[in-house]
Amino acid sequence: DPPRIVKFETLDERIQRLLQEAVKARTASYSPYSNFKVGACVECVDGTLYGGCNVENASYPVGICAERCAYVKAISDGRRQMRSVAIVAQQEKHFTTPCGLCRQFMSEFGDAPVFLAKPDLRDVLVTSVSELLPLSFQINEDYSF
Amino acid sequence: DPPRIVKFETLDERIQRLLQEAVKARTASYSPYSNFKVGACVECVDGTLYGGCNVENASYPVGICAERCAYVKAISDGRRQMRSVAIVAQQEKHFTTPCGLCRQFMSEFGDAPVFLAKPDLRDVLVTSVSELLPLSFQINEDYSF
Amino acid sequence: DPPRIVKFETLDERIQRLLQEAVKARTASYSPYSNFKVGACVECVDGTLYGGCNVENASYPVGICAERCAYVKAISDGRRQMRSVAIVAQQEKHFTTPCGLCRQFMSEFGDAPVFLAKPDLRDVLVTSVSELLPLSFQINEDYSF
Amino acid sequence: DPPRIVKFETLDERIQRLLQEAVKARTASYSPYSNFKVGACVECVDGTLYGGCNVENASYPVGICAERCAYVKAISDGRRQMRSVAIVAQQEKHFTTPCGLCRQFMSEFGDAPVFLAKPDLRDVLVTSVSELLPLSFQINEDYSF
Ligand SMILES: [Zn+2]
Ligand SMILES: [Zn+2]
Ligand SMILES: [Zn+2]
Ligand SMILES: [Zn+2]
Repeated sequence: DPPRIVKFETLDERIQRLLQEAVKARTASYSPYSNFKVGACVECVDGTLYGGCNVENASYPVGICAERCAYVKAISDGRRQMRSVAIVAQQEKHFTTPCGLCRQFMSEFGDAPVFLAKPDLRDVLVTSVSELLPLSFQINEDYSF
Repeated sequence: DPPRIVKFETLDERIQRLLQEAVKARTASYSPYSNFKVGACVECVDGTLYGGCNVENASYPVGICAERCAYVKAISDGRRQMRSVAIVAQQEKHFTTPCGLCRQFMSEFGDAPVFLAKPDLRDVLVTSVSELLPLSFQINEDYSF
Repeated sequence: DPPRIVKFETLDERIQRLLQEAVKARTASYSPYSNFKVGACVECVDGTLYGGCNVENASYPVGICAERCAYVKAISDGRRQMRSVAIVAQQEKHFTTPCGLCRQFMSEFGDAPVFLAKPDLRDVLVTSVSELLPLSFQINEDYSF
Repeated sequence: DPPRIVKFETLDERIQRLLQEAVKARTASYSPYSNFKVGACVECVDGTLYGGCNVENASYPVGICAERCAYVKAISDGRRQMRSVAIVAQQEKHFTTPCGLCRQFMSEFGDAPVFLAKPDLRDVLVTSVSELLPLSFQINEDYSF
């Protein structure tokens, strides 16, 4: 399916909870430089949830986005395959999508539906890791000689 | 247009030269960790060309890809808008596409067609920055308070 | 104190446990590209511990080191000030120190002693975030206009 | 020598010129998010100079600092060993030092003296890559199996 906008109430309870956990994770955001708070929550294939927030740095390129924060929490807990991802950022009238860096990071751990919402959790933009990173970067030949 | 594969000879001379410059830029690749050499060349709207290669680091996350190398050369020379991008990597049977991090970096400086080739410069995959980064990350509301 | 090497047994039990948690965290390392497993554990000022491992990516610059993984877990759980950090990597005869990117990331959350060990946990190199990043990058003047 | 502050006029003409080139490079800074302009200039062992500026991105972690910009220009031009580095940033009353990420990047290409100045080019803080990154991250054992 191409990206589409749906109402929060029409989503599975499982996905509704994922989005609510992203909202909760967002409260811990450390973002004194952008004042832009983002929360994410990833559901692994075994059903465990990991919330993450953006963590900025005085040297901007050193910061880590909410999506990658949630993912490393899952990975460092032994998870390797994700079932779904929710992201809630600060813009109230526009959907905030993951940056390309996070798309690349997520694509390492399989395709998954991605649910994007504004803080009011009314409308939800439904897309996926593979839709967000078409023609993804892949090394199929061996160069480790 | 969706991504499509064309023969090198069918491309504009301008694009053929861009791809050849990417091949040349690739020879300076500093990639002792991956042994994977990549070259890129960006053409600015005023016609100037900037070639770049990947520059790796003992701490892998610190490296810079060929595409970003070419772009910062253009930006630091005062350029801000790109007209086309060529990338040539090491895989001989597969097209190597830019990683998500580079897609994000490139998207800051406008949409542009992207030409991807293998080292033999026979077939060329034609796509674009916007096709490679759909639903791109954008802040449209003001949070700098 | 300048960096110094001490025996594991001479360290506080609290620090011994921190190093053992770093060893445990290391087992989840996702490092198919470097084959170099790293584990870290950070102790917050309230005594909670967060373990982290390195998480690599097909695009090398996109990966996240063990130290930053441990830190974002603490930050996203509401912690802001760290009390001590332990890092255990794969080299058996050499101490592996944190990369400059991680030093920058850690320095955002205060100075703290850093304990570095090889997998055998015999000798421990004792240093600190501030020793590892002298003359640290700081913006003391306001440019957010 | 430990870091020390000297007067611009007391420096070699070669270093004075390097600092002036960093000031020039700074004018191309693309920094709409931080409003913090940085310029750098690196002198290679063969005497060639490469200037760089910071290039920011809407996704903060995707930006590239001035130091790394200057370095990739040199590397992509075939240079591998640097002789000296100059950095000029925006703070008028404080020295701005390179971030840890850039220190890591620079350390890949050898030790070199680093000259840091404020925009007025009066006082210069003299340090070096190795002083800025003590106990630098190094892999001395082979794990590429
Ligand atoms: Zn991101
Ligand atoms: Zn890239
Ligand atoms: Zn690191
Ligand atoms: Zn930097």
